[in-house]
Amino acid sequence: MGKLKKKTDSPSLADLGETALIARIRKGLPVSRKVKVAIGDDTTVIQQDKQHDLLLTVDTSIDGIDFLLKEQPADKIAKKVLAQNLSDIAAMGGVPEYALISLGMPSDLPVKTVDLFYRGLCQMARRYQVSIVGGDMSRSRQFFASVTLSGRVARDKAVLRSGAKSGDWILVTGQLGGSILGSHLNFVPRVKESLALTRRYKLNAMIDVSDGLVTDLGHLLKASGKGAVLRLDHIPIAPAARRLAQKSGETALKHALSDGEDFELLFTCAPSVARKLLKAKGGIQTRITHIGEIMAGGGLFYQSSSTAKKVKASKWQGYQHF
Amino acid sequence: MGKLKKKTDSPSLADLGETALIARIRKGLPVSRKVKVAIGDDTTVIQQDKQHDLLLTVDTSIDGIDFLLKEQPADKIAKKVLAQNLSDIAAMGGVPEYALISLGMPSDLPVKTVDLFYRGLCQMARRYQVSIVGGDMSRSRQFFASVTLSGRVARDKAVLRSGAKSGDWILVTGQLGGSILGSHLNFVPRVKESLALTRRYKLNAMIDVSDGLVTDLGHLLKASGKGAVLRLDHIPIAPAARRLAQKSGETALKHALSDGEDFELLFTCAPSVARKLLKAKGGIQTRITHIGEIMAGGGLFYQSSSTAKKVKASKWQGYQHF
Repeated sequence: MGKLKKKTDSPSLADLGETALIARIRKGLPVSRKVKVAIGDDTTVIQQDKQHDLLLTVDTSIDGIDFLLKEQPADKIAKKVLAQNLSDIAAMGGVPEYALISLGMPSDLPVKTVDLFYRGLCQMARRYQVSIVGGDMSRSRQFFASVTLSGRVARDKAVLRSGAKSGDWILVTGQLGGSILGSHLNFVPRVKESLALTRRYKLNAMIDVSDGLVTDLGHLLKASGKGAVLRLDHIPIAPAARRLAQKSGETALKHALSDGEDFELLFTCAPSVARKLLKAKGGIQTRITHIGEIMAGGGLFYQSSSTAKKVKASKWQGYQHF
Repeated sequence: MGKLKKKTDSPSLADLGETALIARIRKGLPVSRKVKVAIGDDTTVIQQDKQHDLLLTVDTSIDGIDFLLKEQPADKIAKKVLAQNLSDIAAMGGVPEYALISLGMPSDLPVKTVDLFYRGLCQMARRYQVSIVGGDMSRSRQFFASVTLSGRVARDKAVLRSGAKSGDWILVTGQLGGSILGSHLNFVPRVKESLALTRRYKLNAMIDVSDGLVTDLGHLLKASGKGAVLRLDHIPIAPAARRLAQKSGETALKHALSDGEDFELLFTCAPSVARKLLKAKGGIQTRITHIGEIMAGGGLFYQSSSTAKKVKASKWQGYQHF
């Protein structure tokens, strides 16, 4: 916008941006009637049989973009790439089942790196009773790992982004911000928490916080056609966000609101459900915090004790891949 | 083997080779009891419900290795990457259903290239009633496309590589060799043929010819623990293999035996079944040829009318990815 473009005939992906690119692509896709949710949620939802829906998701991570193979141990990278997918299944209220692993690898890659990668992958898979059922390997200049994960959920029980209702309370698991200091490579995907919550409580909408709280709440609001007020004094700020703030010059709150890769669950439910859930701590070990409410009107507002006035949120841009 | 290695501590993928790498990896993989076939066939086979098994496969194609984005139209590349997966589902006797597309793209890639890629992808998907249900996009130095495809097959009816029986006839659809002259970008995945054949006839083993007839027959024999004799005079040699032979200095027969990317179906069945099938032309338009027999003993032998003597096959190496 506003900058000079030399090649007006043929804009590049960088010119267009990721959001516009996805919107452009999803228009023409062939989709059968059994597909309940295609693009636009944490996973696809497909009618499988009378009891279950099938969840499918894929996530590709690339050396130099999503991780640094030279600096980070290959087993931790592997755990992260699988955990990201596990988090997506968790965000639907599903049980993860089968994984396919597609690797692109330079031919001079040491075999021990591949061994270490698979050791981490298998550890994480076993921890969540996921079967690694196949995959392929290709020669490539950059190392990359593309993980496809399937899951199942009781029929019509997937918790979508689009289900938020006016008046719903907004809740989040764990603490937010500063994942770059370490937790982004070492997070616990909220699979058990999601199953415990969805078994006991009627959740209306859910998403995992991968791009940052405000960005992912924005996705949920857009899918639901709603607005929200966030109570800034209630945001659970991670200690790492406070440590990071000392270096970055930003506030810890801003890190909690906008940093990516927390992989916590952000969900909404009716106030009566939320009160019971909070009283019982959701029946889980992980902290759950009430951070705001869904509103009928569009837009996102911030409210704090110091300024009772609602403030239209300045847009904190989430991570754009192009 | 025999060459000097500088880094004995840490062999690279190129030192190890693809076959050894896969063998190394598949040992430790976690797999549940519902998984009937994990690694080692054209797709995974998983028990889904009382009527059906679920098939899953992934295939990644990379610019500069599997195709050339600068020289080949993006829609043809897209059709090929999906068709390769369709061929894998066909090789199991399955019906393709849902695809996930993961793309790695340089940020200076023209948007029109992405548009063209998706146009080809959607055309091919529609032709086979496949739904494109999701995917992701990443920034990468090389363009690549990772396609995950699911399919279904009647319970326990997937045709595996491992089912060949001594005395089975070996049959192949279509014609072989010379795909590099064009058909590798423009082949018809044998989905309809596979369904027509498996509905009417009891096939014991099947694989698609992606790495070359001899190599893929080798995979089938190894999985089945059998040997085979190939009747060289009966190999259906493609016109392209003959044209290629005029330039390459190899015989057309050698191209038919060893060129990759034919994507024809190679299958075995009892002689009584094969005779009926050949008489009825399998009930399909595509040519089917009887090219040999399965033997109890190991090894692959060639037989031709000029030399009635069986000859132990010299190994024609299939494509190795590292």
